[in-house]
Amino acid sequence: MYPITSPSDSSRPFLTWQRITDWAQEHYRCRSFTKDEKIPARPGLLYLVERGSIRLVGEAQVSASSSNSRISRPLEAEEAFLGFVGAGQPFEIVVQSPFTLQAFAHVDQTSVIWLYWHDLDHWPHFRREVLDAFRHQHQRKLLWLSTLGQRRTIDRLLGFITLLIEEFGEPFDDGYYLPWTLTHAQIGSAIGSTRVTVTRLMGKLRQRGLICSYADNLIALPSDNPVLQKRQA
Amino acid sequence: MYPITSPSDSSRPFLTWQRITDWAQEHYRCRSFTKDEKIPARPGLLYLVERGSIRLVGEAQVSASSSNSRISRPLEAEEAFLGFVGAGQPFEIVVQSPFTLQAFAHVDQTSVIWLYWHDLDHWPHFRREVLDAFRHQHQRKLLWLSTLGQRRTIDRLLGFITLLIEEFGEPFDDGYYLPWTLTHAQIGSAIGSTRVTVTRLMGKLRQRGLICSYADNLIALPSDNPVLQKRQA
Repeated sequence: MYPITSPSDSSRPFLTWQRITDWAQEHYRCRSFTKDEKIPARPGLLYLVERGSIRLVGEAQVSASSSNSRISRPLEAEEAFLGFVGAGQPFEIVVQSPFTLQAFAHVDQTSVIWLYWHDLDHWPHFRREVLDAFRHQHQRKLLWLSTLGQRRTIDRLLGFITLLIEEFGEPFDDGYYLPWTLTHAQIGSAIGSTRVTVTRLMGKLRQRGLICSYADNLIALPSDNPVLQKRQA
Repeated sequence: MYPITSPSDSSRPFLTWQRITDWAQEHYRCRSFTKDEKIPARPGLLYLVERGSIRLVGEAQVSASSSNSRISRPLEAEEAFLGFVGAGQPFEIVVQSPFTLQAFAHVDQTSVIWLYWHDLDHWPHFRREVLDAFRHQHQRKLLWLSTLGQRRTIDRLLGFITLLIEEFGEPFDDGYYLPWTLTHAQIGSAIGSTRVTVTRLMGKLRQRGLICSYADNLIALPSDNPVLQKRQA
């Protein structure tokens, strides 16, 4: 939605995208998922979101409680929302004990293509675009980490919302809105807070006119949001 | 230090590394920095750490305080430690208002090579290795975000230390240690906490035997750390 930092970063159209999707259809490498359905993704494979949106979730089983309880109660694991992967974007799953990544369809009719990396040997140019896309996702995560380092939860919350809407937001008369719903619990899981706190702080941000709503409670940034104005200045 | 998740992720040696460093010398594209000296890095360029270690720092100027103060007081900006970039690894700077990234030499005699992306046209294989390295860094950041989503600060702290030592740790008789010093303020800036809180919680983790020290207060994970044992199981 916004101009990306440097031209080389812009999420460029995948030139060979059509050929890849045709190939995926022929080889039964494409599948559709319903909202919140888990993508059976395995480490080492490459996944492409053909349609819809993926929600990445991380599980950390690091707990500072007694080591016994840590090992014996994986149920203690906390899930963290790690972001969206939109149509045309690649994702992959990392599993590195004690951390686990999972991918879920965030909306209905989300379809995903999977490939082995060596499948891309036929399309070296496309492989580079996939790697460039990961490079861009990495840059976004560095910005995300910048805001998560902020001490006040309300600042982390505003920074988090700003980054999401910068990347995925769509324009409307009064600003930009996030085209997908995100529960306060999911937001809390991303910024190290709780559903209750997020609900309270979202109210504060609304009162201060820093965020607003669009349609049936989609999160939005008003166009007079100072952050946006700074960007456009 | 640990086997990386999937073979394709392993930070493989840069095959043409020697040719690149020679080229950088010839073209005055290499410079040495002293500890905590700022690297004059610009967006759009590519940087390679030839020797030493880089500390990435993010600045978020998103503040939920009144919009005036947000714009008029950039001094309010909070710095967040975003991680290290070790020798042989690439990094780049993203600037996306209201966020800014900066790179500092974390140790003396850190030397950095800079290139334009089109310089890599001569070395397509090397470009792919650079992009693969960014892909790997992205995977590490997803794990990092997984632990920062944890509600309890002590869990975020332990997860943060575990991830850093997994990636950069070096072995000693009693476990693995982080080869660079990191202040409690820097740790706090990464996990959204304060120096004082980090100092208090580091004490707790020590008491519980979850972390220990090496040499003159380098952070270490004892080899009987349950997380490591799970990994090795």
